[in-house]
Amino acid sequence: MKVKVLQGFSVVFILLLILGFGKNEDVPLSEQTKECLECHRSVTPGIVADWEASLHSRTTPTLANLKPELQRRISSGNISGMYSGVAVGCYECHSLNAENHKDNFEHFGQRINVVVSPNDCATCHETEVKEYQHSKKGYALDILRKNPIYSLMVGTYTDIKMLDKNNKLQSRISERSKNQSCYACHGTEVTVSGMKKTETDLGEIEVPVLKNWPNMGVGRINPDGSRGACTSCHPRHNFSIEIARKPSTCGQCHLEPDVPAYNVYKESKHGTIYENFESKMNFSNVPWVAGKDFTAPTCAACHNSLITDGENNLIAQRTHDFGSRLWVRIFGLPFAHSQPKTPKTFEIINADKQPLPVTFSNIPAKDFLIDEKETAVRKNIMGKVCKSCHGTSWVNSHLENLDSAVAITNQMTKTATELMTQAWEKELENPENPFDEPIEQEWVKSWLLYSNSIRYAAAMSGPDYAGFKNGWYDLSNCIHQMYYEVNKEK
Amino acid sequence: MKVKVLQGFSVVFILLLILGFGKNEDVPLSEQTKECLECHRSVTPGIVADWEASLHSRTTPTLANLKPELQRRISSGNISGMYSGVAVGCYECHSLNAENHKDNFEHFGQRINVVVSPNDCATCHETEVKEYQHSKKGYALDILRKNPIYSLMVGTYTDIKMLDKNNKLQSRISERSKNQSCYACHGTEVTVSGMKKTETDLGEIEVPVLKNWPNMGVGRINPDGSRGACTSCHPRHNFSIEIARKPSTCGQCHLEPDVPAYNVYKESKHGTIYENFESKMNFSNVPWVAGKDFTAPTCAACHNSLITDGENNLIAQRTHDFGSRLWVRIFGLPFAHSQPKTPKTFEIINADKQPLPVTFSNIPAKDFLIDEKETAVRKNIMGKVCKSCHGTSWVNSHLENLDSAVAITNQMTKTATELMTQAWEKELENPENPFDEPIEQEWVKSWLLYSNSIRYAAAMSGPDYAGFKNGWYDLSNCIHQMYYEVNKEK
Amino acid sequence: MKVKVLQGFSVVFILLLILGFGKNEDVPLSEQTKECLECHRSVTPGIVADWEASLHSRTTPTLANLKPELQRRISSGNISGMYSGVAVGCYECHSLNAENHKDNFEHFGQRINVVVSPNDCATCHETEVKEYQHSKKGYALDILRKNPIYSLMVGTYTDIKMLDKNNKLQSRISERSKNQSCYACHGTEVTVSGMKKTETDLGEIEVPVLKNWPNMGVGRINPDGSRGACTSCHPRHNFSIEIARKPSTCGQCHLEPDVPAYNVYKESKHGTIYENFESKMNFSNVPWVAGKDFTAPTCAACHNSLITDGENNLIAQRTHDFGSRLWVRIFGLPFAHSQPKTPKTFEIINADKQPLPVTFSNIPAKDFLIDEKETAVRKNIMGKVCKSCHGTSWVNSHLENLDSAVAITNQMTKTATELMTQAWEKELENPENPFDEPIEQEWVKSWLLYSNSIRYAAAMSGPDYAGFKNGWYDLSNCIHQMYYEVNKEK
Repeated sequence: MKVKVLQGFSVVFILLLILGFGKNEDVPLSEQTKECLECHRSVTPGIVADWEASLHSRTTPTLANLKPELQRRISSGNISGMYSGVAVGCYECHSLNAENHKDNFEHFGQRINVVVSPNDCATCHETEVKEYQHSKKGYALDILRKNPIYSLMVGTYTDIKMLDKNNKLQSRISERSKNQSCYACHGTEVTVSGMKKTETDLGEIEVPVLKNWPNMGVGRINPDGSRGACTSCHPRHNFSIEIARKPSTCGQCHLEPDVPAYNVYKESKHGTIYENFESKMNFSNVPWVAGKDFTAPTCAACHNSLITDGENNLIAQRTHDFGSRLWVRIFGLPFAHSQPKTPKTFEIINADKQPLPVTFSNIPAKDFLIDEKETAVRKNIMGKVCKSCHGTSWVNSHLENLDSAVAITNQMTKTATELMTQAWEKELENPENPFDEPIEQEWVKSWLLYSNSIRYAAAMSGPDYAGFKNGWYDLSNCIHQMYYEVNKEK
Repeated sequence: MKVKVLQGFSVVFILLLILGFGKNEDVPLSEQTKECLECHRSVTPGIVADWEASLHSRTTPTLANLKPELQRRISSGNISGMYSGVAVGCYECHSLNAENHKDNFEHFGQRINVVVSPNDCATCHETEVKEYQHSKKGYALDILRKNPIYSLMVGTYTDIKMLDKNNKLQSRISERSKNQSCYACHGTEVTVSGMKKTETDLGEIEVPVLKNWPNMGVGRINPDGSRGACTSCHPRHNFSIEIARKPSTCGQCHLEPDVPAYNVYKESKHGTIYENFESKMNFSNVPWVAGKDFTAPTCAACHNSLITDGENNLIAQRTHDFGSRLWVRIFGLPFAHSQPKTPKTFEIINADKQPLPVTFSNIPAKDFLIDEKETAVRKNIMGKVCKSCHGTSWVNSHLENLDSAVAITNQMTKTATELMTQAWEKELENPENPFDEPIEQEWVKSWLLYSNSIRYAAAMSGPDYAGFKNGWYDLSNCIHQMYYEVNKEK
Repeated sequence: MKVKVLQGFSVVFILLLILGFGKNEDVPLSEQTKECLECHRSVTPGIVADWEASLHSRTTPTLANLKPELQRRISSGNISGMYSGVAVGCYECHSLNAENHKDNFEHFGQRINVVVSPNDCATCHETEVKEYQHSKKGYALDILRKNPIYSLMVGTYTDIKMLDKNNKLQSRISERSKNQSCYACHGTEVTVSGMKKTETDLGEIEVPVLKNWPNMGVGRINPDGSRGACTSCHPRHNFSIEIARKPSTCGQCHLEPDVPAYNVYKESKHGTIYENFESKMNFSNVPWVAGKDFTAPTCAACHNSLITDGENNLIAQRTHDFGSRLWVRIFGLPFAHSQPKTPKTFEIINADKQPLPVTFSNIPAKDFLIDEKETAVRKNIMGKVCKSCHGTSWVNSHLENLDSAVAITNQMTKTATELMTQAWEKELENPENPFDEPIEQEWVKSWLLYSNSIRYAAAMSGPDYAGFKNGWYDLSNCIHQMYYEVNKEK
């Protein structure tokens, strides 16, 4: 009977484990972090509680490095120094590389940075930061502001408009409207303009004055000169892999009408299964096992996560260059085209001397774009992910559908562009700025909204975005409207 | 060994508690409620099951009053009388204040009311009802129908349009179209027009005939003359605090395109964290602990919930006057402006003798609006919630961004209004009704949809609603379109 | 004491059951399926894992038939033959009715079909397939392509538009654009055009070449000639009832702007409760118990599920003819009208000799539509579902609201149609194609988007879709715009 009772206890013990007792691994905190927590537990209780629920609070760089390679969440090899043996706490992140941080300041006896930058995260996550900073996301701000055509477009939409004394429409540049719209996703350049005394719950303190802040855009330029914001996808202060793998994270910026990736996903079969079975899936495991951890892919599964099958075979390698599995660029420009070789797209020059990868008559700037061989390589990488759940022939047909959607929407953009050109030739509108007048507005919609939607719908199988929701219905109406406008004065 | 076995049982007992056994507190039901349940368990099984899962079925007013103040969910002090010692059941709510209820009728031997009104809920939740009935929500119906400008607007959109014999467009008022659109959120006036025999599963019964029913609008006027509908946010018959704290509840009415609060929230960092970590949060605890119960705020957290930190320190007091933490009113009117002092906004008169808090040239009706001192008080209340998770300087910069969005969108509305005025002066359109003709339609969109969106996007950081989704992109297109229309005939 | 210890173990045992141990029922696999799994576990691990989590992998037709009738998930009576005693595995489904399958081919020693069709599923689910194939869903492709008016509409929107040498707009039919938009939901005709060698992970294999594939539209015509795709709602390879009962499944096709059922649901009280209490509901139980399994209905609850109360009394019978509980058809046509008797709507002829259930002046083709008696029968079936949670008088008033919405939106469509007719009479536009020119585009929006939305909003109480989101606001603006366009040249 003694034995049976002991067995009973074993069962209870296993149950306890299953129920999550004993989950807390006790790792030491640095003295500095303890000091931070002492005040901030009452000053900013939300931050502290969020961090306490994070993996950062329950591991150390040394422990994290002990994991087998496929399970490892850090990439900088052996990390030495003061932070290697303590939890990744407040001070460990906010004190790094102080010499580069214009936002470094003294705060109750410690010198800390306001903004933790990718360069700081690279202390442990070196590979991810390197990949990210060589991606289009890493250059997202410069892609807009260093490109005169995009700058004109941004200005056309975000400048403040006023009538002058002669009732002519004038415009005034507005940093705030840019920061709150385009740059909210693309990132601002956060600069330090001095120090300021601020009243807080603990009395007056002196803090750096940050301009163009707060901002969490993917191409943010930080007070240490680095590019990017890891918190765009791994929000503070939990920094979880789980949130980054769930689609609404990407949906903060990639949503309709201009980049309807999230909306198309939600309408797709993948998105429906995700929506309905989310609670049965595991979004934290590393590596991420197709079929076991997830039965429908999220954005991360196809675009950047480390994916394996149930037997530790690699399906896809992790990458933080989010375009690196893509061969065609389907949004943001009049014509879909092969992915650019460089993330600095403002350096591209096309045959019409525009800083764009295609001309307005769809001639690609081939030297700057990936070739057929690289296209095949990337299709193969993405295809391997698809083939976790789909047969080869299914996958090939699906990719042909996407090729076709690119070709036929480009043809539609060509027609729209010809109609706009006729409007210019007939002097109905002024070609100086192609973004502002009524027919030009229709032209912009034809590619920026409608052709984009159709291509996303083809890429991810979300039918309405190819149909009535900014799809063929709107694109055809738009072309008919332009045709009517161009020809009505004849 | 005996001791060990007992310890084993203790563990099992704790496990049982964790797993939720023993959750049912047995509270007595009144005889009347037992009678209701007897039939309704088979006649309307959904209602009964929903109520059985509610807190109302598991507590009594007396028990509810025993809780420590911060945990208490009722506010009427000691409640005496028949219902104090029984569960809050069918009869306890549906029999209250019968003398005021025009919808009171005899039903199988009991006299009951069809509609349970805020005045009835006030039996236990006095403070909440008082606050609510002095809020703009409580006056939501009168705000529309007692204001001639809003009435004109409602009529312009909801009247039935027909061509007469001369092909002139005529319109006919439609109560039904108003009830199903504007008044569905704002509330109808529910009246009783007599009694009617109705065939039911239990044979013919006689019931009151309710007009403008069903309706769950926040400003509903009930058959007892009271204003409001608690079920707008605490739906029948569970009446949970959990649902009221979750954002889709507010999203029933506060959604794009006219009040895109819910959509902006969903796109925001807060909304993303909520979406992804909802299952890890607790939406039932009272008080609601920042960081512990929730790691991202919902609408309720910022606008009305009782929030504490982990050590029972108050961060924000509960309120059911949902505008009371707000200083600026950012939707529903051409210009954003300081919050009105009175919830009865139809009593406001501006410098142009309009019943609006601002004139069409943006002169605020200062006497009716809160002053700078009250603005500072409210910013401080809201700011305290922000500071649960954000530093003072971050919060200040965020609020400056909102101030700026208000200023620059008001400037854009001014331009749009000037263009509409020119259209009137040129006799392109008729100023009698500013809501119906094409240029006027653009004017309405410029503020009712686009400027609104931009301000919500600034208030809650949802970038696309300041950009391509009814934001600066649409606002600028709209102004350019109006400018083109006004000037093309020159 | 012995007894107490034993009691302790019983509790532990019950806990184990609750925690889900012992869930796996071991059912035998066929030899063929074992062979499939051997390769596919590594070739397509996602499919295998998904199937392993399905009920198909844990039961056999014989076991499924042993359940009491109300709990039974199959409908073909006693199933004999090879598959009756084994799990419903790869081979059991992919080998059926080979003689009819043009997509049958030899694959590593077995003959299998690429596409599992409804006729194959009917082996076990006969009743469901029969109902489905006699529903409008089952004819969804022919409803479009066999109806010349719908064909014109599809072509107007999905043809590729180009300018010819004289700058006249020309169009070219595109199968791909149709397949990716309209036919993505309505279904394609999947045909086999031969065999092709394909490179796979296991070397070169020969597979059938499928045209118009992949597709998951509800009216798909399969290589065995059957109509429909069960995977539209029961996605591969889990085929769960749970997903089919959740609203986002329907939302893949029934979403704004043209069929905003899902969006209106999400905004409704039902949708809000679902969104907030989803995790407390049970979507797998058969029968589905109102109030107990779900406290707010989903699409399936009202439109097709088998619903009972807590005491095994039938509230609604299961049906896979999804229109069979409906009496009025509120979308897809200029005027809402009584449901057609036949699912083959392309066989209807109205008084104007159009293949439509109503003329452009709203004369219904009565012989083809259900009569008042059948209308009453259907209202009663649907009403019984409503009455699970709502009183009779509430339900009646709600249905009157829907009747009214149909009547007044039809009046608005009549006005819009008269305005378009005037545009034709004034030769502003060309009546040959009523879908393409600017005023005609407005006419299409008036019914296809706005009147539809208003009716859905009335049917399911989602106020914004009757208001500012494609509702009365847009409908009135549209009528005013048309009136202005038609009259401006006078």
